Amino acid sequence: MSATSTFEEHIQFIQSQTDKALSKITPKLNSSKYFYNPIHYVVKGRGKRLRPVLVHLSGQAYDAQPDDLMKLGIAVELLHNFSLVHDDIMDNDSMRHGQPSVHYKWDIPTAILAGDGLFTLAQLSLVGLDNYIFQRFNEVALEVCEGQGMDKEFENDHSIDMDGYIQMIGKKTACFLGMCSELGAVLGGASEEEAVNIYKFGYFLGLAFQIKDDYLEIFGNEESMGKSLGSDIDENKQTILAIVARKINVKDWDNFLKKTRKFEDYKNYYESNGVKKEVENLIESNVEKALTGLSMLSDDRSVQLNKYANLILNREF
Amino acid sequence: MSATSTFEEHIQFIQSQTDKALSKITPKLNSSKYFYNPIHYVVKGRGKRLRPVLVHLSGQAYDAQPDDLMKLGIAVELLHNFSLVHDDIMDNDSMRHGQPSVHYKWDIPTAILAGDGLFTLAQLSLVGLDNYIFQRFNEVALEVCEGQGMDKEFENDHSIDMDGYIQMIGKKTACFLGMCSELGAVLGGASEEEAVNIYKFGYFLGLAFQIKDDYLEIFGNEESMGKSLGSDIDENKQTILAIVARKINVKDWDNFLKKTRKFEDYKNYYESNGVKKEVENLIESNVEKALTGLSMLSDDRSVQLNKYANLILNREF
Repeated sequence: MSATSTFEEHIQFIQSQTDKALSKITPKLNSSKYFYNPIHYVVKGRGKRLRPVLVHLSGQAYDAQPDDLMKLGIAVELLHNFSLVHDDIMDNDSMRHGQPSVHYKWDIPTAILAGDGLFTLAQLSLVGLDNYIFQRFNEVALEVCEGQGMDKEFENDHSIDMDGYIQMIGKKTACFLGMCSELGAVLGGASEEEAVNIYKFGYFLGLAFQIKDDYLEIFGNEESMGKSLGSDIDENKQTILAIVARKINVKDWDNFLKKTRKFEDYKNYYESNGVKKEVENLIESNVEKALTGLSMLSDDRSVQLNKYANLILNREF
Repeated sequence: MSATSTFEEHIQFIQSQTDKALSKITPKLNSSKYFYNPIHYVVKGRGKRLRPVLVHLSGQAYDAQPDDLMKLGIAVELLHNFSLVHDDIMDNDSMRHGQPSVHYKWDIPTAILAGDGLFTLAQLSLVGLDNYIFQRFNEVALEVCEGQGMDKEFENDHSIDMDGYIQMIGKKTACFLGMCSELGAVLGGASEEEAVNIYKFGYFLGLAFQIKDDYLEIFGNEESMGKSLGSDIDENKQTILAIVARKINVKDWDNFLKKTRKFEDYKNYYESNGVKKEVENLIESNVEKALTGLSMLSDDRSVQLNKYANLILNREF
């Protein structure tokens, strides 16, 4: 980052470099078009590249080699896209990153194989990095799968409480962001203690991020989010909003559920019963925990990550 | 292998040790049952463990460490099962290894996630092995995906010739067996030249194996194969039998296709028009090429692999 560039310019630079590298991962278009065309389509989607950005910011705080960070950044973005392509099938989501999801544009077999390919390309992007990176990457990939399993289990299960929900998003999202921040720093030679703290930063930021994702699924803007809203309601997902609503007044909430499945009704209920406000507070408190993880680092190491946390908290998209 | 045990006993020993190790890879049953139960179900299926057996035989020829071979053996078996679970969805196969396929027993989302988990556990089984093993493993995993893509492209495409077919099964099956034999030997410190030759052994054996698989899909025994026969016909797959039939007499074959889709009719056609015989010859010629790959090795190194090739050639299941 040059002295004169702003944080936003720096983020955009990382995003554009990531896009450029991603566009080069499918050179073998002379091979199976059935396999490579959807992969090419996915990596050209309007993803925000928030995970590679975290890898780079964390790694830059420890002067990690740019080439190593790019390898890891591409790997985490591909891992993320793999899970999205497969989750979209499982959840029957029709839009993703501003375009039809793969199984909608093609079909389920095509999307299954495209996801498999993205995951394999993620592994290959790690070639040349330390064995520890490879191990942690896949440990977290397994947790992401476990989290998705819990998410599917929780559908239609109205006994899920806050602890169960936090455990689920902890696996599905938070430990993924924790891994991005941890391994970026590890590539720069961070100490074990520093790695633990910077993992916590990513982890709690991830909790805040996922809670906000549930929140935006109801209170977001369909166009700028580039996906259809309300699918959590259609799928009967146990979102943080539903769990908080149940906690505040279980009778009221159960009565409400018997009456309607309309998107607007849910939105009004959450607003007028204090659910929206409590979830907003929950997001902020997790961001604070994340920043506590950062407070163990020196100021010059944490300044960019602090800004990144704000970016996550204030995103409107 | 002790001096008194037979080859068959030795194979059975490797299979049982592999089964034992596989049964231990899903210890976290207190975590998501949605995720782990189907994985447990898959690894308990009646798989023949032919890929781990090849890893062990090849590695033992070079005195590789048993622990390393077990890690790699488990990884290749999990990779194989991952691809089967996902391919069964794509091809709508209802039986696998003597039991209902995962998406038949549960549903498609469950089977997608189980496959993802098997793939991730395969990666984790490689932890501690050399970076080169990890790289080759994933290069081949990508080829397996490419091969599956070609296989799907070839459905309903009656212009596929022998070259296209061999390229497809080369990626989908042959390079996988090539990798098993190569990396087993590499774990034992085989030279680069030896690794190339032993890869060729596995590769051509893989071609023979896959051609025989197409062959058994028509001429095998449903009960002992543990899966339903004839699904290639239902899916309109371009099998080696269809390609040879077209090559022998395209007019005759086209007329036949207009008349029937019955399994027994196909069987009779292949038998009475010389297709069966030509495919049998093709299997044998590829086994001979495989043995040429072995001929570069010393006798004591190749003896077990020679027996393994015979096992593949003569399997009736």
